[in-house]
Amino acid sequence: MSSAAPRVTGQDHLWSVSEHLEDILATVRPLDPIELQLLDAQGCVLVEDVTVPVSLPPFDNSSMDGYAVRVADVAGASEEYPAVLTVVGDVAAGQAELLHVGPGQTARIMTGAPLPPGAEAVVPVEWTDGGLGAGPVSAMRARSTSPEGASGQVHVHRPAQARAHVRAKGSDVKAGDLALSAGTVLGPPQIGLLAAIGRGTVRVRPRPRVVVLSTGSELVQPDGELESGQIYDSNSYALCAAARDAGAMSYRVGAVADDAETLRATIEDQLIRSDIVVTTGGVSVGAYDVVKEALSSVGDEDEAGGGIEFRKLAMQPGKPQGFGTIGPDHTPLLALPGNPVSSYVSFELFVRPAIRTLMGVADVHRPTTRATLRTDKALTSPAGRRQFLRGRYADGEVTPVGGAGSHLIAALAHADALIVVPESVESVEPGTEVEVVLLG
Amino acid sequence: MSSAAPRVTGQDHLWSVSEHLEDILATVRPLDPIELQLLDAQGCVLVEDVTVPVSLPPFDNSSMDGYAVRVADVAGASEEYPAVLTVVGDVAAGQAELLHVGPGQTARIMTGAPLPPGAEAVVPVEWTDGGLGAGPVSAMRARSTSPEGASGQVHVHRPAQARAHVRAKGSDVKAGDLALSAGTVLGPPQIGLLAAIGRGTVRVRPRPRVVVLSTGSELVQPDGELESGQIYDSNSYALCAAARDAGAMSYRVGAVADDAETLRATIEDQLIRSDIVVTTGGVSVGAYDVVKEALSSVGDEDEAGGGIEFRKLAMQPGKPQGFGTIGPDHTPLLALPGNPVSSYVSFELFVRPAIRTLMGVADVHRPTTRATLRTDKALTSPAGRRQFLRGRYADGEVTPVGGAGSHLIAALAHADALIVVPESVESVEPGTEVEVVLLG
Repeated sequence: MSSAAPRVTGQDHLWSVSEHLEDILATVRPLDPIELQLLDAQGCVLVEDVTVPVSLPPFDNSSMDGYAVRVADVAGASEEYPAVLTVVGDVAAGQAELLHVGPGQTARIMTGAPLPPGAEAVVPVEWTDGGLGAGPVSAMRARSTSPEGASGQVHVHRPAQARAHVRAKGSDVKAGDLALSAGTVLGPPQIGLLAAIGRGTVRVRPRPRVVVLSTGSELVQPDGELESGQIYDSNSYALCAAARDAGAMSYRVGAVADDAETLRATIEDQLIRSDIVVTTGGVSVGAYDVVKEALSSVGDEDEAGGGIEFRKLAMQPGKPQGFGTIGPDHTPLLALPGNPVSSYVSFELFVRPAIRTLMGVADVHRPTTRATLRTDKALTSPAGRRQFLRGRYADGEVTPVGGAGSHLIAALAHADALIVVPESVESVEPGTEVEVVLLG
Repeated sequence: MSSAAPRVTGQDHLWSVSEHLEDILATVRPLDPIELQLLDAQGCVLVEDVTVPVSLPPFDNSSMDGYAVRVADVAGASEEYPAVLTVVGDVAAGQAELLHVGPGQTARIMTGAPLPPGAEAVVPVEWTDGGLGAGPVSAMRARSTSPEGASGQVHVHRPAQARAHVRAKGSDVKAGDLALSAGTVLGPPQIGLLAAIGRGTVRVRPRPRVVVLSTGSELVQPDGELESGQIYDSNSYALCAAARDAGAMSYRVGAVADDAETLRATIEDQLIRSDIVVTTGGVSVGAYDVVKEALSSVGDEDEAGGGIEFRKLAMQPGKPQGFGTIGPDHTPLLALPGNPVSSYVSFELFVRPAIRTLMGVADVHRPTTRATLRTDKALTSPAGRRQFLRGRYADGEVTPVGGAGSHLIAALAHADALIVVPESVESVEPGTEVEVVLLG
């Protein structure tokens, strides 16, 4: 670290939002995959093509509670002239030993039970007298209270075509089929499919572990007492929640006072459980900007271009930003500005895509849309800066919430969108179409 | 429980999807609120109006790293004719004891630090020589390496209006303002706001605890070996994941064999950790439908209308359904059919809204939209049943995925929408506009 105060020169490169983001996305790599229990893999990205080891269903089975029959035996059956069949027993779901259904015979069969040999179709119980000899029934009697239902005779009132109410082996998926391809995000139905084909574990990229650390001697925990000149730490809470919202696990380290040695030691301590480190505050041009002070000198000596670089971005809020890698594992670190709105907007624009990249998700960005600006007076924006204003979006229109001030956290809590004002635009009239980032 | 097989009569009321849902929503009540640590309350619904106890910012403070000045002292200042001020010291963020800035004096001030008495405005460090006497600088030197920056003289190159770069006390929110109203779902920015106003804990409705239990003697854990007639249990996995996705905590009890006593005992055991119980399978008209058998006789004697009622719904898939309350706390229980697609669709239509109701969320339903049906041949649907077909939705169009079979779990895993075919419709031509439930 140089002790000379930097001069204003042409070398003070102003980074565009896109350049900074590109640098981050070119550096951050998807996490190495691990084998996880199925339910632990929810929300994670599959890294393997999963093929079907066993056809689904694994055997021909009944789609109804009813009677397994031979087609010829029920041909022409009606309520007036029922086919009368001898019940040879029950076929319950999960039953391994199957009865044979011969001519004039039937087996009572439950939904999901294997079609017994000899049978060609299933007639639903509602098409029969359930063995009671007194007209159509709407259900079977429970086996536990009426074991006689598995024997005797049954009257069948309607014919059945071959394979009626039979789910064929492999009619869902066949052994060797591709069940899910690499890159699939595992939601509930995908987890259901993996279970159905017998996968108890699955190879995915794990949830990234995000350590969030706010800095500033003025910061007090929310349940503490404010002394003169102090404020409550909100960034570490908001960003921990935002990291989880992005799909990560997050650890809130809380506020570290403005002391470079303490900060450096704290970050080094945390690397063991960090896939990415996020700090807030201490990155600007002040004399107490400890993040900058502590991390500008932290080299990442094993890797060319390692270390944390501090930059000015052509954006508002969020001008000062730090990014790089740190420690033996080249852990990515994003040093965000300390104003609550600046840190939150920076998180959305830079940390969220980094987290999504670690997860291996294909589309790392928030959805954007076009909307008509609803406001009484024109919005103003500094020339040469991409401005992100807070807004509420509904039905193709967006209304600004609060002003441009990066300390307006109450307004942020009532926004659900960011209104983007491009670098070249200094004023946006009411009714203009603008780009909007939907915060979800 | 009656051992008579039910007869087909006019009393066999066929419930509509809406009637069943209304019954559920009229029975399920939001959970009692509890006080949670802020980050534990993420995704939960606030039950209190939260007012601001202390204005934000709590004091006038600097929005820049710079110098706190008296306006008259820098009037007319320029780079050629700078105002030369005596630096009386630093004002860092969080500093309690403040210097007084007298005429001809200035204090070096950091972003977020309180405006010291006597000072009226802040000039950014970039408008000064940073005390070095050699033209404009872009940043301060770090205090730790250059303590002399807090003394000596500074040249200021531009004038400042009163209150320039000063954030006024209360300019974000004022003490007594409503910060967030009851009913707000706590996302990252809301959690940030609560922290900022000093709330370490917050009163919310907790996440519902959902116990998921699949039944069927044919079910094997996904990492087990399939014997003849067996299939893998997928429902308990898919529904546990779906419950989490809805905002709940879920406990997978796994598959219970078709034995009514075991099932009843298992459910009673689980009630201690259940805000809602979901079972799959065993609710239809077969002789081994143990859920129906076990729960039809479980009264909820303390409450009129308690107990579990089994119904036929005018829908496909998902015709057989059970619903009621159970145990001393009148815990809601939904007994879903066992086919994977039936149980998942039933979860989306009935369990998810129940979970969202327990959470106290205002809008409990998935979003729906209208879409043009893209398909080669007309869809058919049974008269008098509301059919829910799986589809993929994009850009106002929906394409069916797989057929109507309720065992087609692979197709479900590639769907992101349900196509709704109303009770009165038996055929839907390609190009028709249909209602679509977006599964998100």
